[in-house]
Amino acid sequence: MPIQFIRSSLFASPKNLLRTLFRVTKLRSLAMGSYTASSQSSKLFFRQLFEKESSTYTYLLADVSHPDKPALLIDPVDKTVDRDLSLVKELGLKLIYALNTHVHADHITGTGLIKTKSPGVKSIISKASGSKADILVEPGDKVSFGDLFLEVRATPGHTSGCVTYVTGDGPDQPQPRMAFTGDALLIRGCGRTDFQGGSSLQLYKSVHSQIFTLPKDTLIYPAHDYKGFSVSTVEEEMLYNPRLTKNQEAFKGIMENLNLAYPKMMGIAVPANMVCGLQDTTS
Amino acid sequence: MPIQFIRSSLFASPKNLLRTLFRVTKLRSLAMGSYTASSQSSKLFFRQLFEKESSTYTYLLADVSHPDKPALLIDPVDKTVDRDLSLVKELGLKLIYALNTHVHADHITGTGLIKTKSPGVKSIISKASGSKADILVEPGDKVSFGDLFLEVRATPGHTSGCVTYVTGDGPDQPQPRMAFTGDALLIRGCGRTDFQGGSSLQLYKSVHSQIFTLPKDTLIYPAHDYKGFSVSTVEEEMLYNPRLTKNQEAFKGIMENLNLAYPKMMGIAVPANMVCGLQDTTS
Repeated sequence: MPIQFIRSSLFASPKNLLRTLFRVTKLRSLAMGSYTASSQSSKLFFRQLFEKESSTYTYLLADVSHPDKPALLIDPVDKTVDRDLSLVKELGLKLIYALNTHVHADHITGTGLIKTKSPGVKSIISKASGSKADILVEPGDKVSFGDLFLEVRATPGHTSGCVTYVTGDGPDQPQPRMAFTGDALLIRGCGRTDFQGGSSLQLYKSVHSQIFTLPKDTLIYPAHDYKGFSVSTVEEEMLYNPRLTKNQEAFKGIMENLNLAYPKMMGIAVPANMVCGLQDTTS
Repeated sequence: MPIQFIRSSLFASPKNLLRTLFRVTKLRSLAMGSYTASSQSSKLFFRQLFEKESSTYTYLLADVSHPDKPALLIDPVDKTVDRDLSLVKELGLKLIYALNTHVHADHITGTGLIKTKSPGVKSIISKASGSKADILVEPGDKVSFGDLFLEVRATPGHTSGCVTYVTGDGPDQPQPRMAFTGDALLIRGCGRTDFQGGSSLQLYKSVHSQIFTLPKDTLIYPAHDYKGFSVSTVEEEMLYNPRLTKNQEAFKGIMENLNLAYPKMMGIAVPANMVCGLQDTTS
């Protein structure tokens, strides 16, 4: 950015000042380098799926370079399990894991149903969530599928057990990286922090230390979107997220004054999701 | 596929026969090569956007290698124009075209509003639609933005003026190619053919001659999805589309017996969309 030009212009006429400010704003946009809206890898198969009622995104990832085509689902929803399993079958993938980013309060996870319909699939959630699952992951753990893997990052604040799954860092891993942020970071927003061990201070620190430190072109894939956005980047959210671009105090003020209604599904969804959707079965 | 193996197995025991059939089904899936769910280009910026009420997808494309970052929107919706223009501004893109794949019956196009809010943007629709727009395209025309372009393919049948916009074929163009199919081809479905000059016979011919002849890894981006799918490929639809994998007669039978309700918005949307959403202005 031509700093010298901007500084000298500040002493010019009000009209020129306005022009300069406009120019600065424009330069700010144009400085963005994170234009890629898709990740490239000869190994990765990727699909984004949507459940309309709860506006939840489910993600299907697979290593299609591996003979078995091992696949995983992130944040499946109970109502769309048949759709997801049918797609997995059509594509000839082998589903091995069903992951949750956290204990959802607005819908029932699909992991329990998937386990009953597709035996052998292992459910995954963070140890910090206090939930039951086949595999309880901790920060720094890797979830491998074929030659690809997801790295587990602790991003509490929406709930105390929230994690972000990030595709691996390495020459054989997808570029740019992809971060499945759950409700920690939404596109131009973030999850609420007023229940389930939520904390605005903790969320602010999580996003800034665990997500905004990723490469700027990292693709952000959240668990929900209510406005029809499908993807963002770290750089876009660092520039334009209306909450997380604020300082910590201002962020706390915003989060304390959202005045949101109590989630309709909470009484049903949270107990079910604490056992990864297996509330009706014995295992 | 090892044909010889399958043939010889047909004379084996019923148990082996079952195994063989299972193997054939599996081979059918595994034969699919179209695993890429994103298109790669150093020039192309791409975003998929969703309007929940009408389940409409809007697509933003730009050539970010060009100094102006010229951009276009395919099938914008009036209700989400502010979201779309805000994103264009944040990304520092210059919107030059707003395209419609056809005269929609379920929502009002955003092209009229975009023209009033962002002067200089040109609206585009097919000449065959009989609608008004700044540019009326015909089959074989190219819509250029920077060094990238969309090719216009006539795909009538849902309406008489439907077109599919396909990214260019060439070393500098996105790979795999991307087809914006409007309502001609939906993911595991297709648009209805019972009004607006619709014809099941014509739609069948359009999809088979203009879309299914594209490379198998071509990504299918439809104007709508009602089940939460975001993208498919030519190969997937050729294998698994429950309507278009049938023969012409069976397809006709399906389309004649859908018993769909008359679209709620039709009386308002079609007259508005015939003038590209400019029904309330003089231009």
